[in-house]
Amino acid sequence: MATSVERSPESGEDAYSTIRGELKQYSFQTEPVPRLHHLDPRVEALMRAEKPVVITDTNLVKSAFHWDADYLSSNIGSAKQTVYSSYKNKFLYYDDKKLPQFPDLQLATKHEEMTFKEFTEKVKNHKKGDKIYYLQQALNDSVGKSLVLDFIKFNWSWATEQQKKYKWGALTSNLLLVGMDGVITPAHYDEQQNFFAQIGGFKRFLLFDPSMFECLYPYPVYHPHDRQSQVDFDNPDHERFPNFRNLYGQEAIVGPGDVLYLPIYWWHQVESVPNHGMTVSVNFWYKSGTEEKIVYPLKPQQKVAMMRNIEKMVTSAINNHEEVPHLLKTMVLGRYT
Amino acid sequence: MATSVERSPESGEDAYSTIRGELKQYSFQTEPVPRLHHLDPRVEALMRAEKPVVITDTNLVKSAFHWDADYLSSNIGSAKQTVYSSYKNKFLYYDDKKLPQFPDLQLATKHEEMTFKEFTEKVKNHKKGDKIYYLQQALNDSVGKSLVLDFIKFNWSWATEQQKKYKWGALTSNLLLVGMDGVITPAHYDEQQNFFAQIGGFKRFLLFDPSMFECLYPYPVYHPHDRQSQVDFDNPDHERFPNFRNLYGQEAIVGPGDVLYLPIYWWHQVESVPNHGMTVSVNFWYKSGTEEKIVYPLKPQQKVAMMRNIEKMVTSAINNHEEVPHLLKTMVLGRYT
Ligand SMILES: [Zn+2]
Ligand SMILES: [Zn+2]
Repeated sequence: MATSVERSPESGEDAYSTIRGELKQYSFQTEPVPRLHHLDPRVEALMRAEKPVVITDTNLVKSAFHWDADYLSSNIGSAKQTVYSSYKNKFLYYDDKKLPQFPDLQLATKHEEMTFKEFTEKVKNHKKGDKIYYLQQALNDSVGKSLVLDFIKFNWSWATEQQKKYKWGALTSNLLLVGMDGVITPAHYDEQQNFFAQIGGFKRFLLFDPSMFECLYPYPVYHPHDRQSQVDFDNPDHERFPNFRNLYGQEAIVGPGDVLYLPIYWWHQVESVPNHGMTVSVNFWYKSGTEEKIVYPLKPQQKVAMMRNIEKMVTSAINNHEEVPHLLKTMVLGRYT
Repeated sequence: MATSVERSPESGEDAYSTIRGELKQYSFQTEPVPRLHHLDPRVEALMRAEKPVVITDTNLVKSAFHWDADYLSSNIGSAKQTVYSSYKNKFLYYDDKKLPQFPDLQLATKHEEMTFKEFTEKVKNHKKGDKIYYLQQALNDSVGKSLVLDFIKFNWSWATEQQKKYKWGALTSNLLLVGMDGVITPAHYDEQQNFFAQIGGFKRFLLFDPSMFECLYPYPVYHPHDRQSQVDFDNPDHERFPNFRNLYGQEAIVGPGDVLYLPIYWWHQVESVPNHGMTVSVNFWYKSGTEEKIVYPLKPQQKVAMMRNIEKMVTSAINNHEEVPHLLKTMVLGRYT
């Protein structure tokens, strides 16, 4: 399924140099995310600091390396899968629960339910201008027996060791992502720790630390696009979003067998590398641990959590999200600006 | 002490017309505050709606009508009084408890302790260019016996009847205000219900309803000038405070015997009318009652309370007021603007 690419798991910067040369450039600068063998002590240092790192040779999802389109078609089961479709290659996430408050919101992405077979047919027969499809299905008890057996053989001992070492909370879900090449999940942050395990194909990550919140202008918390940047990376509105010019980040390519540690509250745009085939990935999402004691100054992630709480509190107290912008502007403009 | 002025307590708009013609005009429009006999049913309607009204013939502080400079000098007692001094006639309030966080704040107003005799000497001998003095002393157990007797004879039965009718909380304090003519307390709001009872001289009130918060730009809550407008009414900075152009309000003059109901969260600038002598007033501050049930949309005063709580919460959580503006701007600019 994926084009073969020369890999050098131990040599950091030089891995995937072919792919790297093909990628679209954006207006901001990036540094490479360190790429390290799972036994390298720098992995622990980075993870303790909640900084991203591509970890090699974990064997976390080795038992799923044969999860290509044909195998999944035959073995994932007959249940309908969660698939998003769009005429554009950007799949901006939206929160279904927040949609009823926004009846006029235009969504470029539609949610469709279909079997995995139907999904792969659409992927195989795709022609330029056709709809693009992106499967995002939680690995749950609807999957077939042989997939369950593969799932059980994930390297849970390694995963659980990390979970304990970094005092994370419970594993909340594993999301299977199967994307046509070229699909993009635009910049957003998640509220959980994540091991992003690549199985097939190549994904490019653009990563921005939590302090970049001020450069990325997420939608209001009550909005269906909560946690997603409002900035169009391909055509940024510098007047509305002046700090976008100050954005800089990190960049990683992950291929089969790689595990990206994606720290909680870190921003990420994820792109299935064009012209290298379908991508298959599995997310391991963990709840954050509980802070032992508060240390000042607060970390950027703690400030993001605080802003989220304020926005939720105001929206709930005012009981009408349409009144929230006016209240927040009244509180801040000319008083704190 | 006060120049005699023709008064017509029952005739609303025409009371104090002489004084009204002498007053400085500001850039905003005002309507007159209704001036009504305490038995007029419109008083109750206004008070239920938390709107200001000048109430006549309450006899609330009739027992203090002889509190002129000489009587207070002889009878208030020998304790030091709280007096503010300034070379300017504007006495911008500051909160002592918040001063340590602002070591570089320049205060035009100084707090001095002196006996009432020393205070009246300074008032009597005042020449142009001298410091201006404004006494603001809580009526407490330090006052002399005859003042206590006068105080006991305030019309408490009327006051307590109102407190019950409008479901206010406890009476928290009575503040005695004695000001040289021309002193100004710049626009601010208080967090209590207030009966402002005039004893001697004439005070002009400029009043703005709580929705005018957005036109008046109060200092941050952590600032010593919390609750005070940042706008200089004599020289407004329209670039920093663009909504000040949308300000409009109400206006009242109160003379001896008048009681102004000053609703909680209403903005007020208070001026001792120039060239009409020293003013003597007593505040009756009551805690707000507890809301029975929440009704949407929220009232402007409830939104002000909410903004205050957010600002307090953020300042406390971030543990350094200097970081608050950046966090609030990050939360709002480009996201809610
Ligand atoms: Zn994500
Ligand atoms: Zn006041």
